[in-house]
Amino acid sequence: MASKASMEKIVSLAKRRGFVFQSSEIYGGLNGCWDYGPVGVELKNNVKREWWRSSVTERDDMAGVDCTILMHPRVWEASGHVSGFTDPMVDCKTCKGRFRADHLADTPCPQKPSKMVGQHDACELTEARKFNLMFKTFIGPMEDTAAQVYMRPETAQGIFVNFKNVLETSRQKIPFGIAQVGKSFRNEITPKQFTFRVREFEQMEIEFFCKPGSDEEWYNYWKDLRFNWYVNLGIKKENLRLRPHGADELAHYARGCSDVEYLFPFGWSELEGIANRADFDLKQHQQFSGKSLEYTDPQSRERYVPYVIEPSAGADRGTLAFLIDAYDEDTAPDEKGAEETRIVLRFHPRLAPVKAAIFPLTKKDGMPELGEKLYKQLKKRWNVDYDLSGSIGKRYRRQDEIGTPFGITVDADSVKDGTVTVRDRDTMKQERVAAEQIPAYLEQKIEG
Amino acid sequence: MASKASMEKIVSLAKRRGFVFQSSEIYGGLNGCWDYGPVGVELKNNVKREWWRSSVTERDDMAGVDCTILMHPRVWEASGHVSGFTDPMVDCKTCKGRFRADHLADTPCPQKPSKMVGQHDACELTEARKFNLMFKTFIGPMEDTAAQVYMRPETAQGIFVNFKNVLETSRQKIPFGIAQVGKSFRNEITPKQFTFRVREFEQMEIEFFCKPGSDEEWYNYWKDLRFNWYVNLGIKKENLRLRPHGADELAHYARGCSDVEYLFPFGWSELEGIANRADFDLKQHQQFSGKSLEYTDPQSRERYVPYVIEPSAGADRGTLAFLIDAYDEDTAPDEKGAEETRIVLRFHPRLAPVKAAIFPLTKKDGMPELGEKLYKQLKKRWNVDYDLSGSIGKRYRRQDEIGTPFGITVDADSVKDGTVTVRDRDTMKQERVAAEQIPAYLEQKIEG
Repeated sequence: MASKASMEKIVSLAKRRGFVFQSSEIYGGLNGCWDYGPVGVELKNNVKREWWRSSVTERDDMAGVDCTILMHPRVWEASGHVSGFTDPMVDCKTCKGRFRADHLADTPCPQKPSKMVGQHDACELTEARKFNLMFKTFIGPMEDTAAQVYMRPETAQGIFVNFKNVLETSRQKIPFGIAQVGKSFRNEITPKQFTFRVREFEQMEIEFFCKPGSDEEWYNYWKDLRFNWYVNLGIKKENLRLRPHGADELAHYARGCSDVEYLFPFGWSELEGIANRADFDLKQHQQFSGKSLEYTDPQSRERYVPYVIEPSAGADRGTLAFLIDAYDEDTAPDEKGAEETRIVLRFHPRLAPVKAAIFPLTKKDGMPELGEKLYKQLKKRWNVDYDLSGSIGKRYRRQDEIGTPFGITVDADSVKDGTVTVRDRDTMKQERVAAEQIPAYLEQKIEG
Repeated sequence: MASKASMEKIVSLAKRRGFVFQSSEIYGGLNGCWDYGPVGVELKNNVKREWWRSSVTERDDMAGVDCTILMHPRVWEASGHVSGFTDPMVDCKTCKGRFRADHLADTPCPQKPSKMVGQHDACELTEARKFNLMFKTFIGPMEDTAAQVYMRPETAQGIFVNFKNVLETSRQKIPFGIAQVGKSFRNEITPKQFTFRVREFEQMEIEFFCKPGSDEEWYNYWKDLRFNWYVNLGIKKENLRLRPHGADELAHYARGCSDVEYLFPFGWSELEGIANRADFDLKQHQQFSGKSLEYTDPQSRERYVPYVIEPSAGADRGTLAFLIDAYDEDTAPDEKGAEETRIVLRFHPRLAPVKAAIFPLTKKDGMPELGEKLYKQLKKRWNVDYDLSGSIGKRYRRQDEIGTPFGITVDADSVKDGTVTVRDRDTMKQERVAAEQIPAYLEQKIEG
């Protein structure tokens, strides 16, 4: 069942509750750039942390790195980005506009929007030219071509150029992977769909190095593992699919590629690509750098350039999908017991920006003191909220909207017998738990 | 007592054990850019995580954000960076070199290095001109001034332009702060001292908004708190100092600024600056954006532009200081009991890249099975190592060099009675602990 969320609802909730703001909003925004607000940054950090835990820390066969965004310009010659990472563009000599040559049929003419670009009499279009999507800048004191560098369009190449360094310092043996989380930049002509297609984004990439011949097996392994990662963190299976690329979509060197796609409100779209890139990248860097990137098997002493399986995920796209899939509307009783519509984000507890909220029922009779004590204790371990204001129904609603899985109410009985009420966000059922058991209760529910 | 580390020892250890590599090293490197390797990325992530925990999650009066590196260009006009973030440069018409005008006396002439720039007869220097340290690039399909944007030189401005958004969505009341961790870029003419002065770096910044008149008190509060943060995470107090800026160092609007400095091998240098910026930034953005950034006190309805205290820390500098300060050399017995020199990194357990290493004493008699079981259990919670190869002394040395606080040995007795030996990295003392108690033991030692 597709999410009840529309993009309008998500964008509106995201702004209203502090998940995502437009970058530089008070200056009219910057197209293709979005900022994460107070709950958004916790959500996105949780997504990245879960990825790092499952991909790096919990595994024996993975090493992490964190490389710079600015890299030596030869890296992008070797990778093929200087020559091939382009969109075809045409200019109109009349209106001075620049347009995607392959999107002319859907692009209204700026001078006569009822017609498409090229169909208005005044349009005078140039031949299509390649427009490189890499942002370029100058490093050092001179602004000339010798100093021109690029902002990385992907984190993958930082991994490839460090292959030998990691091999020599980490005691890893093939098969093993190198993982990285970090920002990348693409000068997209048409950013769209909120945080889905943007110019500045964050990637979570793995390059998994294996022996030629074993690559098919590892390719299948990573396809399954990465698909299930989203399922295990709560995305409904029916909203996910693995779509193998057709032969016409594959790069010439690629031996296979599949996308994990999510059923966004705007249709099935890519969250992550898992590609069998063979030995293309290491061989290119070997050639361009003149450094051997061969691996020597410690048992057989056989030497070879490893094959690579690349699971490449978008942290912003993943975060958006988790947000959309968590979105639900149902009904809940208001203060007077009347049913009202509620918005609830059914995040997996590990992803929820706030894990629990503590509500003293009233501001007297020792309830705030008990609540604050519990709050301070939990805050050392998790991001938790404390809310004293408004009816208990209103306080629940506030937390439901940001997906807080547990509401903990401190009432008159709490002061007497040391128990509190824990309310489950999804079932809205309540249970009575000893306050001193709450840390263990949450530990089991969140981390267990 | 200053650290026993020299910069040569730190750079060499960092490369050899996978803390830090030169960016794009196989292509000869990129000046002023460094990559973090497998243990380095864990160390730096731990530094950032501890900062976030103590600055954001554990506090009631702080909200986090995560803003884009590319921002609207007007932001940098308002902030003063377009006009004022410059170094004075001169060009030599003879050799085409460009040099810092204020460093000529220390800069050898490229054509005659025995003389300084300007003192060789052939030198023909231009007047000094301002060279802006911001990296610029072009966004969208056109490369013209209308599309020129900058890579942010600091994360602070992302916070200021989101002040209203955070205020409206987070239920914070003044006094409160907004915190951000992220990359910034400065086109330094002379990057130097390893990861200390670089062109791409990561910041951990807070803007703390308070009522005018309370700013002096908050300024002192943050100076103390931030100084003690480094002490509490293990930096020796005698290697830290708080240096108030002289009147000649202060910006015209600043009401006070102090640096937390660390005694690096190259001398006392800044880790973090804590500045009282008054209402300069919010007023500038108010003026340039035309949007009100006033705050209305919910009780008194008084309206004012808040004052700002800014604790601005460098994540890379902090990481480097933690690494240098942890560095020690002492003696430890080798396999045959002879004393040998050992390198040991005495990291605080929370910062240590690897928290514990599990060593089955031999490869037989059930020891690896028991060790692996414990390893898998601990790996769900912490980054831990498992090492079966080499003498136990060698295995200790490997972990000492990357600062692993606990070595856990599984021996013949372990198989019989379920206890293991825990060896403390610093004292090298060993104690016998029940294997099933190890998670609680580590929890208390690391998080307690």
